[in-house]
Amino acid sequence: MKIFTFDTTLRDGTQGEAVSFSVEDKLVIAQKLDELGIDYIEGGWPGSNPRDKEFFARARELRLKHAKLTAFGSTRFARNRVHQDQNVRNLLEASTPVCSIFGKSWDLHVHRALGISEEENLLLIGETVKYLKDHGREVVYDAEHFFDGYQANPSYALRTLEAAKQAGADVLCLCDTNGGTLPHRLVEVIAEVRKRFDGVLGIHCHNDADVAVANTLAAVEAGCTHVQGCFNGYGERCGNANLVSVLANLELKLGHTTIGPEKLAQLTSVARFIAELANLSVRNDQPYVGRSAFAHKGGVHVSAVLKDSSTYEHIRPELVGNRQRVLLSDLSGRSNILYKLKQHGLVDRLDEKSHRELLDRIKHMEFQGYELEAAEGTFELLVREALHPGLQLFEVISYEVTTRHANKDSQTVATVTLKTQDGIHSATASGHGPMNALDLCLRQCLSQRYPAISNVRLVDYKVRVLDTKKGTAEKVRVLVEWSDHRRSWATVGVSDNIIDASWHALVDAIRLELMRLMEKDDTLEKVVEDYCWGV
Amino acid sequence: MKIFTFDTTLRDGTQGEAVSFSVEDKLVIAQKLDELGIDYIEGGWPGSNPRDKEFFARARELRLKHAKLTAFGSTRFARNRVHQDQNVRNLLEASTPVCSIFGKSWDLHVHRALGISEEENLLLIGETVKYLKDHGREVVYDAEHFFDGYQANPSYALRTLEAAKQAGADVLCLCDTNGGTLPHRLVEVIAEVRKRFDGVLGIHCHNDADVAVANTLAAVEAGCTHVQGCFNGYGERCGNANLVSVLANLELKLGHTTIGPEKLAQLTSVARFIAELANLSVRNDQPYVGRSAFAHKGGVHVSAVLKDSSTYEHIRPELVGNRQRVLLSDLSGRSNILYKLKQHGLVDRLDEKSHRELLDRIKHMEFQGYELEAAEGTFELLVREALHPGLQLFEVISYEVTTRHANKDSQTVATVTLKTQDGIHSATASGHGPMNALDLCLRQCLSQRYPAISNVRLVDYKVRVLDTKKGTAEKVRVLVEWSDHRRSWATVGVSDNIIDASWHALVDAIRLELMRLMEKDDTLEKVVEDYCWGV
Repeated sequence: MKIFTFDTTLRDGTQGEAVSFSVEDKLVIAQKLDELGIDYIEGGWPGSNPRDKEFFARARELRLKHAKLTAFGSTRFARNRVHQDQNVRNLLEASTPVCSIFGKSWDLHVHRALGISEEENLLLIGETVKYLKDHGREVVYDAEHFFDGYQANPSYALRTLEAAKQAGADVLCLCDTNGGTLPHRLVEVIAEVRKRFDGVLGIHCHNDADVAVANTLAAVEAGCTHVQGCFNGYGERCGNANLVSVLANLELKLGHTTIGPEKLAQLTSVARFIAELANLSVRNDQPYVGRSAFAHKGGVHVSAVLKDSSTYEHIRPELVGNRQRVLLSDLSGRSNILYKLKQHGLVDRLDEKSHRELLDRIKHMEFQGYELEAAEGTFELLVREALHPGLQLFEVISYEVTTRHANKDSQTVATVTLKTQDGIHSATASGHGPMNALDLCLRQCLSQRYPAISNVRLVDYKVRVLDTKKGTAEKVRVLVEWSDHRRSWATVGVSDNIIDASWHALVDAIRLELMRLMEKDDTLEKVVEDYCWGV
Repeated sequence: MKIFTFDTTLRDGTQGEAVSFSVEDKLVIAQKLDELGIDYIEGGWPGSNPRDKEFFARARELRLKHAKLTAFGSTRFARNRVHQDQNVRNLLEASTPVCSIFGKSWDLHVHRALGISEEENLLLIGETVKYLKDHGREVVYDAEHFFDGYQANPSYALRTLEAAKQAGADVLCLCDTNGGTLPHRLVEVIAEVRKRFDGVLGIHCHNDADVAVANTLAAVEAGCTHVQGCFNGYGERCGNANLVSVLANLELKLGHTTIGPEKLAQLTSVARFIAELANLSVRNDQPYVGRSAFAHKGGVHVSAVLKDSSTYEHIRPELVGNRQRVLLSDLSGRSNILYKLKQHGLVDRLDEKSHRELLDRIKHMEFQGYELEAAEGTFELLVREALHPGLQLFEVISYEVTTRHANKDSQTVATVTLKTQDGIHSATASGHGPMNALDLCLRQCLSQRYPAISNVRLVDYKVRVLDTKKGTAEKVRVLVEWSDHRRSWATVGVSDNIIDASWHALVDAIRLELMRLMEKDDTLEKVVEDYCWGV
């Protein structure tokens, strides 16, 4: 059955504590969601803040191919007449084909939050829906707190739906606003609603009881054909139903149609794209699209998966655009890396000695606190170096970096001295912080010997204190993410000195870049791809 | 009804990509889980790695008051006789009152992974269970891949349970190993099992379809009285059922007994404690126990919650040891901070001018990229400074920090010059990295004037690139977490220079420490507590 998808990442998602989008971000995301085949894109609440108002003004330039842009607002204020209500006027001014408005279903809210009578609330709902319908809008009516309201006073909760329906609402969307309803109760209530109302019922769940996705799926089984949610489960408190998981489950497990199988294969890349703009990472363990979602660590699992991937994978990762990974870890013994190398016929290219050295090196680095699981770039470098024992592209003689602050101004200057085959190279540069200054020096030193050195871009920089018992004197791990616009990878450095750890990650990234430039080895590329994330 | 809780954080949880515990960590966690009232603690797989073996050896010194320690393993290998099987011997040598063993329920695995006949697999199961029972163990039989196995070949899947049951297994635990089963299907299968088997049925879910918690709850409704899961949902791929959410839902929403209401109030602190040892943070949006789980950002929500917290909270946060928070953010207007100050009667202590200045300062800082939501320490400092306009504890004249690397050795030296009421102070110190060296200088400069300055400890240090378009030249935000063993808080610094940003966070932490020493103002402490996390 066709299930309509309603994305509210740009509205409810931004209520998440860590989530913040600029107007540009929102426009780009709307475009992306449209390309993915989402049916409704709720862009914001034009009455609540200037940023959302600007978004709708600029959204007129968007050329959406499929999705209907939706503006969100509330029913009119009790003290205003509907055509004079600023919130309602903002909705019309947003000039979207669809408006979603929320109204109160819970008598507690009518009394406590609005401070009006139950009858008056029905008027608010009916008049606002009718006014928007009269102005040609498709109207999604969000019955806020519907399940709590139904629990407290079922007949009143149903009357609020009736008010919206009679005024012409196109969708009656049942909201579990506080996120506290469990699936068995949710379906009971929906069954009661379904008995009384035909037409499109929608569902809007929050994850406070950790069951938002299950609730959304249960609602569809109970007759809802319109599902609301946010990418990556963003949203206030514990977030909204994760639309990513909802889409995958509806398509792959329940046989419904949402965005279709072809678009579904873009799910991972869109989820990551939106996370990137939110300046968050997709959680590694996020179902379907996380980096670890099809990653195997335990030796038993790894060996079975290599025989038949269905033994430990519930779907083929390609269906959602994700991929299988085999992890390095002390739990699995060293067999995982052997499998990796074997799979691609590389074991034979490493002689016994360099093979053993590679394993020892990895073991030693992990013991020091390196996390090769997260640092594909560093792993790739290790493999490339093992394939070319003795190859030394450059040697670091010394570096120095100083940050001076005086008269409210800070300045960082670095000096780096390297040795390459054609001699000693020194460079001095000032930069915005130590990493930048050292990076500039390093590239300056190498540009003569390796003119092709490109501008691999630093994408993210993460620091983790490894053992927090000694305060500022403790070991830190620096993880740097790089991108060359085609793909991204990370390098890692560990030291008790953050500058030193950053330097290691930086030097490894440059070494890797040079190694890649120097050899174009397809087989190796393939191993490496299993550890790198395609952008 | 009493539902038995089986925690596998220390075994299945460590299969998570990012999760790693030392033996000490595992011992401490086992103690903590026991105190929380968990019934079974699965400590590891003594046959799989030396770390788990050591754990069980040392676990004999643990004095568990309630929980039964459990050792995990597999049925015997096909080629071994049971009493000669090393894996089974390791289980007995672990000397735990309970053993959990997994066996194959899925014919695919019997053929593909084990490469034996279906009958032979039944022998493996029966003999291993019986052998452990004969040695006085309580036996939890984990039916691996039970739901996939039942799907493929229901009668064979049931026969594997029968083999375990007849051999004396105390619990038949149905595992959704690949995590791909949805609740409606799961309960159908459990109903079939329930018809055929009496005694204790257990459930073990993975989160690959994002419904592990809902599956676990549905299984309990279908008759399972033994639930397995991991704290914070750790585990291979997308993790195991999050035991935190399962416990809270069973106790608070379904009326079952697990650890009881008194212990439940420790849930948040135990979840955070375990995350700390895993060197991970509890996800802010983690249901029940995350920092954002009862945090309100939108202005509408904030104003309603302040009238009646049940309007936007599904449970009282105290029931799980969490607390309500009201966030500062541009979405909610400035009203949230006003509410905070008002709530504690502090609005009147700020005159109109300093009040406006405080709001302007917060607005300006957020615009620059400060995130006060996450930095309670910096917020507290702002409030304290607003209450004491003109109070200047010290002024930074200059600082300088240099990291030098040569001959494979790195050294960092810093110099700081400050002005306090009694003159100019300079100090030079070397340290493990810039933060450590600057911290030492700063405390040295101030120790004469403020001898009471204590050793607030740096707990974590996080760096985030704010806008990644300019690579290493971009603005960074440094978030530093501090602790004084009583509570913890964070300060934040933003700059295009990481050293400068770290310096800001460091100086703010020291300023705050001094302000706290200088005034003991109970009212203020109270506001501040709402932004600080009790350790």
